[in-house]
Parts: sequence; C-alpha cells; structure tokens
Amino acid sequence: MAAVTLTRLHDPAVRGFASDNYSGVHPEVLAAIAVANEGHQGAYGSDVYTARLQHAVAEHFGEQAQAFPVFNGTGANVTALQAMTTRWGSVVCAESAHVHVDEGGAPEKVGGLKLLTVATPDGKLTPDLIMSQARDFDDEHRAQPQVLSLTQSTELGTVYTVVEITALCDRAHSLGMTVHLDGARIANAAAALDVPLRAFTTDAGVDVVSFGGTKNGALLGEAVVVLTPETAPGVLRLRKTSMQLGSKMRFVSVQLLALLTDELWLRNARHANEMARRLEAAVRAVDGVRVERSAQANAVFAVLPAEVTEKLQQRFAFYTWDAATGEVRWMCSFDTTVEDVDAFAAAVSEEMAAHTG
Amino acid sequence: MAAVTLTRLHDPAVRGFASDNYSGVHPEVLAAIAVANEGHQGAYGSDVYTARLQHAVAEHFGEQAQAFPVFNGTGANVTALQAMTTRWGSVVCAESAHVHVDEGGAPEKVGGLKLLTVATPDGKLTPDLIMSQARDFDDEHRAQPQVLSLTQSTELGTVYTVVEITALCDRAHSLGMTVHLDGARIANAAAALDVPLRAFTTDAGVDVVSFGGTKNGALLGEAVVVLTPETAPGVLRLRKTSMQLGSKMRFVSVQLLALLTDELWLRNARHANEMARRLEAAVRAVDGVRVERSAQANAVFAVLPAEVTEKLQQRFAFYTWDAATGEVRWMCSFDTTVEDVDAFAAAVSEEMAAHTG
Amino acid sequence: MAAVTLTRLHDPAVRGFASDNYSGVHPEVLAAIAVANEGHQGAYGSDVYTARLQHAVAEHFGEQAQAFPVFNGTGANVTALQAMTTRWGSVVCAESAHVHVDEGGAPEKVGGLKLLTVATPDGKLTPDLIMSQARDFDDEHRAQPQVLSLTQSTELGTVYTVVEITALCDRAHSLGMTVHLDGARIANAAAALDVPLRAFTTDAGVDVVSFGGTKNGALLGEAVVVLTPETAPGVLRLRKTSMQLGSKMRFVSVQLLALLTDELWLRNARHANEMARRLEAAVRAVDGVRVERSAQANAVFAVLPAEVTEKLQQRFAFYTWDAATGEVRWMCSFDTTVEDVDAFAAAVSEEMAAHTG
Amino acid sequence: MAAVTLTRLHDPAVRGFASDNYSGVHPEVLAAIAVANEGHQGAYGSDVYTARLQHAVAEHFGEQAQAFPVFNGTGANVTALQAMTTRWGSVVCAESAHVHVDEGGAPEKVGGLKLLTVATPDGKLTPDLIMSQARDFDDEHRAQPQVLSLTQSTELGTVYTVVEITALCDRAHSLGMTVHLDGARIANAAAALDVPLRAFTTDAGVDVVSFGGTKNGALLGEAVVVLTPETAPGVLRLRKTSMQLGSKMRFVSVQLLALLTDELWLRNARHANEMARRLEAAVRAVDGVRVERSAQANAVFAVLPAEVTEKLQQRFAFYTWDAATGEVRWMCSFDTTVEDVDAFAAAVSEEMAAHTG
Repeated sequence: MAAVTLTRLHDPAVRGFASDNYSGVHPEVLAAIAVANEGHQGAYGSDVYTARLQHAVAEHFGEQAQAFPVFNGTGANVTALQAMTTRWGSVVCAESAHVHVDEGGAPEKVGGLKLLTVATPDGKLTPDLIMSQARDFDDEHRAQPQVLSLTQSTELGTVYTVVEITALCDRAHSLGMTVHLDGARIANAAAALDVPLRAFTTDAGVDVVSFGGTKNGALLGEAVVVLTPETAPGVLRLRKTSMQLGSKMRFVSVQLLALLTDELWLRNARHANEMARRLEAAVRAVDGVRVERSAQANAVFAVLPAEVTEKLQQRFAFYTWDAATGEVRWMCSFDTTVEDVDAFAAAVSEEMAAHTG
Repeated sequence: MAAVTLTRLHDPAVRGFASDNYSGVHPEVLAAIAVANEGHQGAYGSDVYTARLQHAVAEHFGEQAQAFPVFNGTGANVTALQAMTTRWGSVVCAESAHVHVDEGGAPEKVGGLKLLTVATPDGKLTPDLIMSQARDFDDEHRAQPQVLSLTQSTELGTVYTVVEITALCDRAHSLGMTVHLDGARIANAAAALDVPLRAFTTDAGVDVVSFGGTKNGALLGEAVVVLTPETAPGVLRLRKTSMQLGSKMRFVSVQLLALLTDELWLRNARHANEMARRLEAAVRAVDGVRVERSAQANAVFAVLPAEVTEKLQQRFAFYTWDAATGEVRWMCSFDTTVEDVDAFAAAVSEEMAAHTG
Repeated sequence: MAAVTLTRLHDPAVRGFASDNYSGVHPEVLAAIAVANEGHQGAYGSDVYTARLQHAVAEHFGEQAQAFPVFNGTGANVTALQAMTTRWGSVVCAESAHVHVDEGGAPEKVGGLKLLTVATPDGKLTPDLIMSQARDFDDEHRAQPQVLSLTQSTELGTVYTVVEITALCDRAHSLGMTVHLDGARIANAAAALDVPLRAFTTDAGVDVVSFGGTKNGALLGEAVVVLTPETAPGVLRLRKTSMQLGSKMRFVSVQLLALLTDELWLRNARHANEMARRLEAAVRAVDGVRVERSAQANAVFAVLPAEVTEKLQQRFAFYTWDAATGEVRWMCSFDTTVEDVDAFAAAVSEEMAAHTG
Repeated sequence: MAAVTLTRLHDPAVRGFASDNYSGVHPEVLAAIAVANEGHQGAYGSDVYTARLQHAVAEHFGEQAQAFPVFNGTGANVTALQAMTTRWGSVVCAESAHVHVDEGGAPEKVGGLKLLTVATPDGKLTPDLIMSQARDFDDEHRAQPQVLSLTQSTELGTVYTVVEITALCDRAHSLGMTVHLDGARIANAAAALDVPLRAFTTDAGVDVVSFGGTKNGALLGEAVVVLTPETAPGVLRLRKTSMQLGSKMRFVSVQLLALLTDELWLRNARHANEMARRLEAAVRAVDGVRVERSAQANAVFAVLPAEVTEKLQQRFAFYTWDAATGEVRWMCSFDTTVEDVDAFAAAVSEEMAAHTG
C-alpha cells in the first residue's frame, strides 16, 4: 500500500518580519535529524547524539559545562531558575525580560518564583539598577533575591558587552547571588559582539545559560547549560518534574549539535544580524521613520504612523511593539534574504510616501 | 562555503525491545516535517498545519473535539488534568499509571494535584475499584476527587474494552467526576480493539484525551484533545503556563497530521501489536518462559530466570519490569521487523536452553 | 498538685510606635475567648461562635456576605486571590501592596499567582493607573489579569474614598475583572471615612474582603469575607488546602465576633487614628521634622535626620520606612495612650533640638 | 461607654468523644495568654516568650533543637517537609497518615510534594514496610524519596516504641533519607511510653518534629522543632512563604511555653490516655462491642452495630471511622472527666442492650 503524501499547505516563498520563530528549520538541521534517525537509541538522553552534544557544548563553554536539552525557552528558563534557587528564592530581572512578560506566569506557577523587576531604558540591567531589587537579604518577609537573570540579546534588540556582563556578574556574586543568562538569542549576541560564546558567559561569570536553538534555525530545541555546577544542582531532576524531558531526545540533541557544527549557529546569527542592519539603514533613509535604538542584533525597532503600520501589515507580517508610541518591531531571521529586506524597505518607503503625500 | 555534514554516530540497523520510544521517526512523518518547512508561518499555533490538524482530529473524535499540540506525554497529561480540576481537586488513577509512577511528581509539582491511587491486578480500573477513592465528596479535609484518569493501553499492556470504558465513564459522571484518558499508546489500543478512536473515547464518554504521537512514530509530539469542552476550560492558557507551548508549532502539528493521514497511526500500531503477538507466540513455546498476560497491545511481559535476562540484555536492549518476580517487558514498535522478533525469540530460546541445559 | 504560674517576662507598661501588631489583645477580646472556652464544640467551624459570626458579618457587609475565618493576613489574601482566579490568572496591585512586598512570595508560591504591579505616588491605585497592567486579555503569553487587589487603608497610611473605590470597581468590572480588598486595617479606614464598612466594600462593588482582626485588637484572626459569592467559589476548600483552617475555630471566630460586638472594632480604630492625628500635629510643630502625607488612618510618616532617628529608636521602637530619604513610620494602635503620644512627641522635639542645637 | 459583654452561646458542660480538638483551652494556657498580654512586644517572633520557648524546647529535645511556632498541624507538617526536601523530593508515609488523608492535598499543592504511601495494619510503618516505596533513588522518572514521615501517636491510636522509631530512623538514614515525626499527639505518645520527649525523637534519630499544642490543651499553636538543623535549612523562610508566620507570635509561643511549664503537656496527655483506657475497659465489658486495638494513647476504636452507633451519636458526639466495618473512634481529651467516661460507657451498654435485647 503506497503512502499518500501529505500536501504542502503553505507558500514557502512567503516570509515576513514578525519573528525569528516564524521561520522554519535550517536545511542542515533537518539533514541532521535524518542522520540521527533509524535504528534504536536509548531514550531520555542515553543516546550518542546527546553524549556528543556534551562535547560540543564543552568546546564552546568550557570543560565544566553541562548541557540538558529541553523543549523550549520557557522550559529552559524555568528549569534553570528553579535549580538556582531555594524554595524561598526570587529572581531579579528586567521589566522587559521574556521570563516576566511572555511566559504566562510559568516561573511563578511552576517554580513558585517571585520575579523582582527593574525598569530599564533599553532592556539592559546595570550593577546600579539591580540594587533597587537586590536588597534586604535578611528580611524574613521578602522572597529572597538569589538569582540575577539577564537576557542576551535583549527583548529590545540590544546587546550587553563583555565588560557589562562581567560587571553584573561581579556585583551579583558579591551579593551572594548567582547569574542566569536567557540566551534565546545568544547566537545573535555573540555574532554582534564578534566574540566566542564563552567570552560573555563562562568567562564573564555567568553561572547558567538557557541556550537557544529554535530561533537560530532549529525545529524545536534549547538546552540548560550549567557552567558552574555547584550553583545549579538538580537540573536533571527538575527537567523531568518540570515536564521538559523528551523521550526521543536524540532528535533535540542532534539539532543543537547541528547548530554547533561547522559554525552553523554563527552563520545563521550573523546573517540575521546583517539583514537587520541592512533594514535599519534602508528605513533610516525614509522620511518620517524614526529608529531610536540601533539594531545591535537581529531586531529593528522603528516608530511609524499607525496608518502606515496598518497598511504595511496587510503586506508583510510584523508586530506592533507599543501601540501607544507607534513603535513596531521587525525581526530578521536566518532565512531572511536580501531581497526580502529590500522589498520590505521599499514598501515602507512607498507607504510612508503615500501617507505623507 | 560548503556545509560539513554531521556524521551518523549510531548503527541504524540496531533495534531492541526496550521501549517504543527507542525507535526513531517514521519516514512519512519525517517527510511531512520537510513539507511543512520553508517560508514563514505564524508561531504558537497560528499556522495552517495546526489549523488542518483540527479537522483531522474532528474527523477521528467528532466535531466538538479540539486539539492542543504539546511536547510530551507528561505535558499532555498534566495540562489536561489541570484544565479538568479546580485548585482543590484530585485525580483517581491506577497505582500503575504513568502519571503516578513515571512523571517525576509533575502532577503534584506543576498542578498541585493529589493522585488518589487504586491497586489493580492488570493496570485496569473498574467502576467498583474506583469507589475506594472516588468518595467523601463533602469532606473538607480531603483533596476532592474530580477526575478519573484511565490509561489506554495500560502500562501493563492491557486494553480496556469499549464496554469497560463506557461503564467507567458512566460511574465517574454519576459521581460528578469527569474522565481523562492517557492515550500515550491510544493507537495500539484502537488497533487491538479494531474500532475507531472515537468508539472508546468520545462515544464511550471520555472527556479529554492525551493523544500520543511520539511512541507511534513521531519525532516528538502529543496533543491534548478536548472532547467535551465544558469540562476542560483553559487548556490554551494552561499549555502556555505549563511550558508546553511550542513556537514553531507547525512542526509538531504536521507530525500528528502525518500520523492521521492515510491511517499511518493505525498502520504503525497494527504492526507493532502484530510483532508483539508474534513474539509472545514464539516465547510461549520456549520451555521455562512464562507469559502471564496475553499481549493485547504492543508489550509482551514474560517471567525469566534472572541469569537468562542478564545474558539476553547483553545482546538486546530491554527492561526488567519487576526484579522481585523476574518479570521483563518487551516492547514492540512501528519499526520492529519480523526478523527482529524471530532473532530475539531465537536468542531467548538459546539462552534458556543454555541455562536449563 | 498546684500549677506553677508562668511568670510574666515583659514590662506591660512599655509601648512604642513600631507597629499595630506589636500591641497585645484588647481586654474585651480576651474576655470573649474565655466566654467561648470550656465544654466541647465542633471543630473546623461547626461551632456556635462561627455560626454567630456569619450573622455579625452579614449585618456589616450585607446579607450575601460569607465569612471564612483564617489565621493571618497573608492567609486571607492568598486564599481569597486563589478563589478569585483560574489557574492562569494574575493580580493587579500597587507596587507597595503588602501582598507584593511583605508576604515572602506566598501568592506566587502557594497560588502560582503573578502579581502585576503598578507604581503609585501614595499607595493608591486609580482607574487610569491600573490600565498599565489591566490589559492584553487575549494574549496567550501573558498571565491573565483577573483580579484588582486594593489595600484599605494602604501601606502608606492613605485611605481610598468611597468614590475612588467605586470608580476602581467599575473599571475593573468593565474589564471583566473582580475586586479584592486587603483590609488588614479596614477598621482604620472606616473610622477615617466615618462610614459603615459596607459603604466602601459591598456598596462600592468590592467582591471579596480580607477582613483584618489582628491589628485591630485580636490575638490572632482574620477572615475572608466573600461579598459576591459567584466571584470566589471554593474558599472553603482553598482555606484547607492553603493551611488556614483552624481546628478550634471557635476561638478565632469569637475574637472577630468580639470586635464586631458593641462597635469594638470602631472604637479601637477611631482611637488609633486619633492618636496618629495627635502625633502628627505634635511633630509638625517641631522644627526640622517634615510630614509629607497627612495621617489619614493610624500611621504617621515623617522625615527626620538619620541621627535623630537613631537616638529616638534607642528610646522608642519604630521602623525606618525608607533609609534613602530618612522617612520613618510611626504606627498607633488601639492601646496607644495620649501619654504615649505626648511623651514621644516630646522626645522627638528634644532630640531634634539636641541635633540642630 | 461601658462595653457590652459577649454572651456565652454554648453549654460548657457538654463534652463528647468526637475529637481532642473539640475541647477548649486549658485554664493554665489561658492564664498564660493573659500573662503575655499588655504592653508591646516585637512581632513575628522577636518577643521574649518566643525566646524563652527556645529554652524550654532545648530542655526537652536537646541543645541543638530549634522551635518555629506555627498555626496548625498541617502548617507544621508542610513547612517541615518542604525544608527537608529539594524541589524534586517526595515523602514516604503511611497510607493512614494525616498528611496524606486529612490535609486537603496541602503537601502537594503548597510544597509540590508527592507522598509515597505504604499500607499498614495499624498505622505503624516498619523498616521492611517502607522499602516498598523507599527505592529507585537513581530513577530520573520518579519523584525522589527524601523523607520518611512517621506519626506518633498514629491516627489509629497506636504508639511506636523507642526501639521501633530508632530502627526506622536507622533504615531511613542508611538510605540517605531524613525522618520527620508528625507529633500532633506527641504528648500522648510520650505519656503512653512513659519516657521523655527526646527518647523517641532526638535520641532515636528523628530529624524534625511537628510538635502539637492544639490537641494537648492549647487554643491554637504548634511548632516545627528542628533537631538536626542541617537536614532542614530554611524553616524560617518557609514558615513565612507558607503563610504560617504569626505577627503577634508571643501568644502562640506562650501557649506552648505554658504546656511545657510544670509538665502541663504531660499531665494533660496522661489524663487523656487514662480516660481512654478507662473507656476501653468499660466497653470491653459490654457484650457485642469489639475493641480490636488496645488504646495505647487517647483514642479508643470499637466496632458496633450501625444502629447502636446512630443511637449513641444522638446523645454524644463522636465519629464513625469506617462505615464499612462499623468501626467508630472515641477520642479522649485533657478535659474528659471520669464522669464523662462512665456516663458514655453506660450509654454504650444501654444502647447495646436495647439493640440486642
């Protein structure tokens, strides 16, 4: 009996600027999944691809690094933060942090974790800024700040420098806190800084990283990467109890392995960043478009008239970031093409002209 | 720059009887992932494959059925059970249920759910058996039993009949409880019963199903399938807050869609079940091997001398089920071949002969 | 055998301005405990004093009101908020709210509740202010705002007017949210406003009140008072599962009953408020002491030189509210005497003189 | 204005056999509350009575013992168990344990703790019995057994001997587990064994005790008593975050102090136990009444015809323990009198005679 082929239901030529998770799977990642397929392999991480991933991670983050593959970014963050806190701990993070804004309350619900948030101008915390929350360590009435969680690159498309992260880690450690780095877009940050992954993680004093694969070209896959094991005991157990333990783990691990092979992670990130810079340059030239923050990673934030945004959204997918100010976000991805950018920039120009004209 | 191909690290010809999640991805599922790739699609379920999955699920479970793709079985079960309970609810299940034995305490930790367990001879609950826990509905001191959770097929390889499930649903409903069915191996059960999926779910009175894809040939993917929406409000929200919302959901949905296309789910399950029956028949013929429960689905449970088990495990992967009794579990999968079964049965015969000889 | 009397270990004449929970039990409350003593009464609320409390509460809050006695304010708040939310709900409150600042993360840990905080100038929310958080009701990625929690009187000693609470309730209800009022000091608010309790609760649109007894002269006892039962199902169950169900409940209930008898709650609150006003007036006359907010309830906030604060704290117990600004908090209680206030004001004057002199 | 005295609403002469928490407050405890009253004392435990309680507890449990007063038994148990476990831990206890049966799922909900239950003939665990659950310490899929929780005296009125507890502690420790003792009725056990409290706790190897005051004659008050501090870090923090931190703690502490003064705890327990033995002896003499377990502490369990139970319950309050077998529970208390027992025994005899007659 011949199998009926599932029909393609979408137009593979359509791409927008909504999010890097609107993109699909990089061909090399898909090929790697096929490589890992067939035959039997131990479940829940007792497979050769998960073992090999350990080596790849150790190469990038140092010998002590341990990788625990999970399903998604929320899973990586909440598993990591639970491992780094006692039952009465809390987490200091930026008000704009994904873990606070976009995880449906999972840190609170799954981990019972209070998030102590700090307002920032650009998504980036500083040693001074965190002091507004990293305090009162002897107050019995306050959920105790135990972890500083940074996002790199940030939700606002900005990137911490190595020096900035080092200073934050030093401050946190001096307060008896440990440091988590939400690296859903860690590859874009490394590409932007043009330094190895360990330069702003292991070497800067970060204790645990949520290493993102999905937005970098994977189908689905992230990892909790523990850099200082004594700060995060129990990730193995917490991954299970937090429902992030995959049975056919070889297929998650091999995706991350594919990204770490032949610098695919970096190629993808560099390309996405480059596309963002190209887009930024193009729209800066358009009268009436204001770009307030330079695109450091793969996001461009611009302020447009609401009518223009509306018109553009009929042609290209993207999100309004702040309806009050008219700020929109344009996200570039590993598969964004030069033609995509140019066509979109032209559309912006066109719609702005129609609007002001 | 040409990409370096990731090297295969395992022998694709090696297969054992450890678990159906030791197997890989069915070629049709892998092909479907490729079909869904390229171009951009809305994230978090706003894609055409997730939309199409709704239709496929409605065809199998009835018009009211709603599917919420998630990552794994624990995620499906705990998301479903939370949706079906208030904050003070508890769940009646078999002592052998996966949700009790193998989920690392996730129902308790993530959902705060007490599981009220019932001992069973064969993994199957009955209307009478559940009464030992489905009681004291007006006792303020007791976590309130609100859901009956059944596993089909069970962890012991047994299968509830349509009549049995109907009777359990009737009893549960008459007590004001609702019914969840953990269908990590629902396909094997349907194949064993030779009835449509809805016969022992929707039509029997089940309210919510954890629909399993992974063990049936997917890479990774399950779905909470809500059959009576009024019994499980909030699955959409709970999936997110329980960290089971995938961003590139099209790739989870398309796998389930592939299984539901052209009866791949049934072909895979029938084959696995058939291999189990073949194995059972072969080992029953071996002197000294005792098979206490007939293989109703894709698992064979046999009692062997510990020394024989040890010898066999050096040649084939499988698990000891109960070290005290010497019972072992042999699991067949969609990719188990006739040759695999025959070679394994021969090995059993050989090692038993060596042992008793 | 004659019992050895436990010796008094403290000086009953010493009182300070640290907190209204530094005070003891009002004699009428202690007498009421003795009245409820002896003989047997049903446990867990099936006693005559708990039954009578229902009548007293209905008199003050309206016929629909239901009281559930609990142990403490955190217990009342977290039990109430859980009853008012689904498993995926969140709560909008002031950044200064006790539930956010002083409950050790109990809402997050026990209820899995995210608190969405709003900065306020004086501890009081407004319909406009809450809009910064009471939004995005259709965003799957955001813990859903379902409850507005107000504190009356606030942690900053301010009091919402009836009109203000009504407007907040109207706004919340129009958004599909319900309203919780943390009334740890509800008596002080009623005394300050000189209106019945129901004027700014039941009649203003509040759905559930945490009714405070401890700070008003009880030994220990609060109650969740549900005003609109359909908004808070399950308080009975949640009280138990949240570890707030007392066995010898008659002794908690009779305290609240004593407070509600012969207007003891109001006499106590009026007295405390009056002492605060007397203190405010006295210290306003002292050169160099700045009182930025008028004492609306029983707290006086003043700004002093740090050295003066230190000297005063050697003589009287009170807390620094904000070390950065030098603001201190002086709390009056049901047992604060005119002499206490005058002696303290004299000390303030004396120490200021010594400082500036 | 003269205060209106709250009227007594109950008959202080009525006592039954329903529960030791149907009783009121022992006069010496009430007197102690009055002693601690008046004047101001630091809140949340910074008072002289809480400080003195530490000394009293150290006298009874050894120098290392630390007491943390809480509100109720569930609060004590769940605070203790959380302190003794990691986020992925579970607790082995008897199927009949209060923590499993009567705490509304609070361990699961508040602590995320799975309880691994063991059936027992008489409420008492043994080193052998616990092995059915204290296993699989390297199984990633199983919530890890970290604590053994014993109840002394048990829910079935039985009492562990010193030797039995020592053997259980030895076994638990050899497995890497720690031991919690739910001592809601610890006084009755000590009285029954006629040994000091430390004999079957500190000296037997118990790590943490829930020390019960309420059932022993307090108004309301228990304490987590930590015997080996390294096994239970964070009780101070967990008490707060678990909503068990009382503000006017002096009144909880002074009750426990009163019980520990002049052996009131022991006098109360001895009396209650003696009344139970008297009742047991009396009803054993009644034809048709079967007492299957000797009253070791303050509970008598008897099997009666359902009709007789019903008749008796119209005259005296008590609970049916097991409707299926006809077993009832008669609980004696510190305030049960010889006359109460004799009158009740006479009633039993009378109703039995009427029934059989």
